[in-house]
Amino acid sequence: MAKKVILSGMQPTGRLHLGNFEGALANWVALQNDYDMYCCIVDWHSLTERYKDLASLDDDIVQMAIDYLAAGLDPHKVAIFIQSQVKEHAELHLLLSMITPTPWLERVPSYKEKSEKLGLDSYGFLGYGLLQAADILIYRADFVPVGKDQLPHIELSREIARRFNGLYGEVFPEPQAKLTKVPEVPGIDGNKMSKSYSNEIAIADTPEVTADKLKKMFTDPEKLRKGDPGRPEICPVFTLHKIYTPHEQLAEIDRDCRSGELGCVADKKHLAESINKALDPIRQKRRELEANLGYVNDVLAEGAKRARARAQETMAMVREKMHLR
Amino acid sequence: MAKKVILSGMQPTGRLHLGNFEGALANWVALQNDYDMYCCIVDWHSLTERYKDLASLDDDIVQMAIDYLAAGLDPHKVAIFIQSQVKEHAELHLLLSMITPTPWLERVPSYKEKSEKLGLDSYGFLGYGLLQAADILIYRADFVPVGKDQLPHIELSREIARRFNGLYGEVFPEPQAKLTKVPEVPGIDGNKMSKSYSNEIAIADTPEVTADKLKKMFTDPEKLRKGDPGRPEICPVFTLHKIYTPHEQLAEIDRDCRSGELGCVADKKHLAESINKALDPIRQKRRELEANLGYVNDVLAEGAKRARARAQETMAMVREKMHLR
Repeated sequence: MAKKVILSGMQPTGRLHLGNFEGALANWVALQNDYDMYCCIVDWHSLTERYKDLASLDDDIVQMAIDYLAAGLDPHKVAIFIQSQVKEHAELHLLLSMITPTPWLERVPSYKEKSEKLGLDSYGFLGYGLLQAADILIYRADFVPVGKDQLPHIELSREIARRFNGLYGEVFPEPQAKLTKVPEVPGIDGNKMSKSYSNEIAIADTPEVTADKLKKMFTDPEKLRKGDPGRPEICPVFTLHKIYTPHEQLAEIDRDCRSGELGCVADKKHLAESINKALDPIRQKRRELEANLGYVNDVLAEGAKRARARAQETMAMVREKMHLR
Repeated sequence: MAKKVILSGMQPTGRLHLGNFEGALANWVALQNDYDMYCCIVDWHSLTERYKDLASLDDDIVQMAIDYLAAGLDPHKVAIFIQSQVKEHAELHLLLSMITPTPWLERVPSYKEKSEKLGLDSYGFLGYGLLQAADILIYRADFVPVGKDQLPHIELSREIARRFNGLYGEVFPEPQAKLTKVPEVPGIDGNKMSKSYSNEIAIADTPEVTADKLKKMFTDPEKLRKGDPGRPEICPVFTLHKIYTPHEQLAEIDRDCRSGELGCVADKKHLAESINKALDPIRQKRRELEANLGYVNDVLAEGAKRARARAQETMAMVREKMHLR
C-alpha cells in the first residue's frame, strides 16, 4: 500500500531555534520513515509580511534548509523544496480562488488578528489561507503536522477540498491535522521562544553563545542568590532542563534548587552543557553543510523536482475535471 | 526600434458576434502590422462567473480562435493563445497580490456592480482586476486596446506597475489604454449587441440565419407598414446599414424610408445582403478553419509558446528584483 502523504511547511525565517526544532522539526524527522513527505519552505507566504525586506530572503531559505538537513531530515526520504520553485502552487491557488468565498478567508482567526496588529491589507495577505490550502491540496496530502493554532487553517483547506470535489469530482482527500504533543520551549526572557521576541537560542549558535545567552536567562525572581530556595516549576531554566538534561539528573536539580544548595549560575552552566551536548552532532553537521552550499542547493533543486512531479500529476487531474487544457 | 507591445484580451464566449467584431476584433486586425501583439483568450477570468459551467469552455475557446483567424488576425504577426496555457500569469498574479491593497480592487467600479448584480463573492472575483494587471504587465505591454468602460482597470494596472517599480526597481512600463472609436452595433432588439441579451448576429451565422434574424429586428415603432414615414435616426436597422451597406447607398435609403416608399421588409432584406456580403470572405475562411481544427489548435499552441517566451523573460526580471530564485 502506498504511504500516506504529509505536507509540512515553514516560512523561511532563517536560522531555526530550539522552539522550531522541538515544536516541528524533530517531529518531522520522526515522521519521515512512515510517510511520503513534502517539506515546503513557503517563501511566497513570507511575502505577505516581508515584501519590502527581501534582500536576505534567499540566505534565510538556505539557512533553514541547512537546519532541516542538520536536524536529520533525509533528502532521500523527504522532498525539501522552496514553494516558489513549484509554480503549480500558484496555478492551483488561482483556480481555487474562483470557488472560495472571500468570507471564508476573512473569518480565519489569524487573519483578523494579524491584519489589525500589523496593518496588513494586501490581497495576498487576505489570501494567506487559500495559498496554504493550495500548498496542501496540490500534494493531495492526507496529513499536515500542525499546532493547535493552525487548526482553523486546516479546516479551511478541508472546506475548499470539499467544495472542489463537490463541483468537479473527487480529486483531493480532505487533509487532516496531525496534532503532536510539543514540549514547552521558553526563550531567554521566559516567554515562548520566538524570533519576534529576540529571545531565542539558535541551533546555529556556538556553544559559547549558547552559554552566554543562558547566563542572562530569566529564573525564579525570588531566588536572588545561591542559598535562596528556588521554585523549579516556575523557572524556564528548569523547563529546558526537562528537554535537554538526562532525566535521571532532574530530581537532583529539583531538590538542590529548592534547598538553595544549587545556585542559578551553576545551574545555567549545567543547562548550557546539556543543550550543547544535545546539539553537538547537529551543529557539527551544520558546519559541514555550510561549507558545502552546493550540496544544499542541489537538495533544494532535487526536492523541487520531486515536488513538481507530484504537483503536476495533481494539476493534470484538476484541469481534466475543470475542462481546462 | 523595437515595436511597441499590445496586449488584448477577451473572455472565451464562443462564437463572436458583429458587436465583438466591430468593437474589438477589426481594430486588432488593423493594429497587428504596427505592434508586437499578444492576443489572450482569458479562460481563467471567465471562471469568475462560469465556474459551474465548464463543459463547453474548450469549444468556446476554439470557436473564438476560429473567429480571430477568420477575421484576419495573422498568427505570424500576433500570438493568439489561451491564458491558462501560460502559467506565468498565475505566478505574477500571486506576486503582485502581495503588494496590492485589497481596497484598490474593491473600488474598481465593475467589481462593485457585478458583485451585487450577480451575487459573486469569490476571492478570485475580487481579484479580477489584479489578474488583468498580471495579464498586461507580464508582456510589459505599452498599450491595451479597450473601451471606455475598461479605463479603471487600466488605471489599476498602472498603479500596480508603479507600486512594483517603486518597491523593487523598474520592470514594467505603465500600460496605456488605446481607446478606439467603435461604431455603435445594435442587436436585433435595438439594445447594444450582446450575448447576454441574446440579440446577436454571429459571424458564424449562415446568410439565411442572418436574414431571418434581421426580419425580426426592431425598427421605428411608428412605421407600421410600407408607406408610413420612418425615422432612420432612431432605427437600429439603419445603424447597421451605416456599417455594412456601401455609403453611397445610404442617402437613398434614408430618403425612401422617410418618404415611406421603402418598407422595412425590403430594407431588412437589403441589410441582410449587405451584411452577408461583408461577412462572406470571413465566413468562407471560418468554414475552412472548422474543417481543420488541428491547424487552429496548432496556432493556439504556437501562440502560447511565443507568449510564454516573453512572459518568462519578464518573470526572470521580476524574480531578480524580488530576490527570488
